[in-house]
Amino acid sequence: MANITNKHKERIPLLKIEQTIRRILPLDEEAMREAARRLDRLTKPPGSLGRLEELAVQLAGITGDADLKPMAKAIVVMAADHGVCEEGVSAFPQEVTRQMVHNFLAGGAAINVLARQTGAEVVCVDIGVKGELEDDRLISRKVRQGTANMAREAAMSREEAERAIEIGIELAEILAGKGIRLFATGEMGIGNTTPSAAVLSVLSDVDAEDAVGRGTGIDDAGMKRKQATIRKAIALNVPDASDAIDVLAKVGGLELAGLAGLVLGAAANRRPVVIDGFISTVAALAACRIAPAAKEYLIPSHLSEEKGHRVALKELGLEPMLSLKMRLGEGSGAVLAFPLIDAAGNVLREMATFDSAGVSRG
Amino acid sequence: MANITNKHKERIPLLKIEQTIRRILPLDEEAMREAARRLDRLTKPPGSLGRLEELAVQLAGITGDADLKPMAKAIVVMAADHGVCEEGVSAFPQEVTRQMVHNFLAGGAAINVLARQTGAEVVCVDIGVKGELEDDRLISRKVRQGTANMAREAAMSREEAERAIEIGIELAEILAGKGIRLFATGEMGIGNTTPSAAVLSVLSDVDAEDAVGRGTGIDDAGMKRKQATIRKAIALNVPDASDAIDVLAKVGGLELAGLAGLVLGAAANRRPVVIDGFISTVAALAACRIAPAAKEYLIPSHLSEEKGHRVALKELGLEPMLSLKMRLGEGSGAVLAFPLIDAAGNVLREMATFDSAGVSRG
Repeated sequence: MANITNKHKERIPLLKIEQTIRRILPLDEEAMREAARRLDRLTKPPGSLGRLEELAVQLAGITGDADLKPMAKAIVVMAADHGVCEEGVSAFPQEVTRQMVHNFLAGGAAINVLARQTGAEVVCVDIGVKGELEDDRLISRKVRQGTANMAREAAMSREEAERAIEIGIELAEILAGKGIRLFATGEMGIGNTTPSAAVLSVLSDVDAEDAVGRGTGIDDAGMKRKQATIRKAIALNVPDASDAIDVLAKVGGLELAGLAGLVLGAAANRRPVVIDGFISTVAALAACRIAPAAKEYLIPSHLSEEKGHRVALKELGLEPMLSLKMRLGEGSGAVLAFPLIDAAGNVLREMATFDSAGVSRG
Repeated sequence: MANITNKHKERIPLLKIEQTIRRILPLDEEAMREAARRLDRLTKPPGSLGRLEELAVQLAGITGDADLKPMAKAIVVMAADHGVCEEGVSAFPQEVTRQMVHNFLAGGAAINVLARQTGAEVVCVDIGVKGELEDDRLISRKVRQGTANMAREAAMSREEAERAIEIGIELAEILAGKGIRLFATGEMGIGNTTPSAAVLSVLSDVDAEDAVGRGTGIDDAGMKRKQATIRKAIALNVPDASDAIDVLAKVGGLELAGLAGLVLGAAANRRPVVIDGFISTVAALAACRIAPAAKEYLIPSHLSEEKGHRVALKELGLEPMLSLKMRLGEGSGAVLAFPLIDAAGNVLREMATFDSAGVSRG
């Protein structure tokens, strides 16, 4: 926060981001204590529902309400393109980003199927897809036609990164206003494991080798190219590790910045946000570097097969609940965690107590 | 199988168990190939849905149908008591088994809440609870009033263990006949982590120390007592590790034998069966020692906090999908895996193909 206000005084004040950061408050400890008290009266050995009980307490703290009412859910899928694809870092052609956006809108992608199953809304956002996309169902918030090739110049300007973050914040606000009580992060962007690995590498100070995985399925030669590209981009652009917005601008992506904004906006509106796989977790890490208080609002979902995911989760101190060897993105892992979050609320609201059921305590 | 037919020729032929073992067939490889072909046409990098894709292929092989229709689900909760409670191995009094059965029937336990969320039926079975239980909603199949104290004599006779297995088989058949297409194992029995650890110790040839955990929450002294009790029971009863029915009879429990039967019955009826935590996994291990072909019908769910669960899963070659630090039993972890299994089917049935969605391949 200090970064933003002090280092860039000369620019237009970052009112939206700044105000949002200030609105992110610590969790409500009284609601958490009340949820914990209720859990201990239920007919089960204390703590025996493990993460479900932890989730119940966290949700009470986030919402300030130990009643844990059922939550309307939205998965926000941010789509954008990446100039770095010129370096041959992806197994799929760049046009697939745009094609998959159409697939999301038509309801045929994995995220649509999984979201339908759990009654969640898919909100598809064009935050920087290359080419024109005309569809009433699409949230059009294109900041630019994909990023520049970070191996040759900054992926985008600082102003563009800030704009993308603001878009994420605004979407969280709009959706919260429409009654969404639980968010999940999703993304689509051919090539986006490369900027994600670059951002992780800078923010966590790990070598490209530990941050880079196979993405949609590149071979060994592609992996080497990806690592070299990331090292080159970092050396060329010299992102400031203490300034996450600078890192997102120089070696990040528009959907990464947008999702970081979504996390900030969700937290500012006291809404929990479920984090998907590698790209989403890196975006959440950037958000927590911008506003550390946002961390308490994050709920992890799965452990992805993408190598750097473990590093990013560890950096955030998050332990995944699902081990499904998935590596698709789109928010597919996050949505699969929704039933676990519903279960936490249902347990708290619906289970009998030792007294009401006439069960002896241990 | 040879064990049963050859070693016990003098007794009444074990028709039910024997016939069931013979009905457990290998998975349908053509249906599995067809499911795999369909998965590879869907709009996602090949294999990127990880375990969901593996589940889809397995379900096709089990049911013999690559269409993966939605499945009606039942969680079979077998309840029984354990004479070994006399040795002070549990943190809860024995009467809690009976009290919890009433809680299951009234719909107030964790398993009821979680099953309701996923639209599954809870089938509660008294297979050996101490005391009388009168309730129309209860499946009454009491083999005896709890086991004997295995630290002093065999937990039950071989005939009783076989009867419990047959009950499990019969229930699977009845429920399959009523349209249930997906089973899950659940149990309730104060003290039952002790016989489970004993059975695991014998079947997997590991020391009691590696098989024993804290159950519902005993202290360090209780843990030592539990280990010593298990060693004593094994030394006294000398179960034959190559004969799982002998092991279940001498150091097992009625719900363990019943669940082993349920696994055999599900497999014989080509129905997948989701395995819950420690006790359920040990029962499944016993089933697979009786009929190795049953293994392909098992679907793991969560990794329990109970120490021996990891050993039992490894012995079966199963990798859990959920890491929730749970240790409740009842089938609570198995039911939480139901949405993942539904997701596997939904993905296969509902996702667009590369061709239908006009998406370029990698």
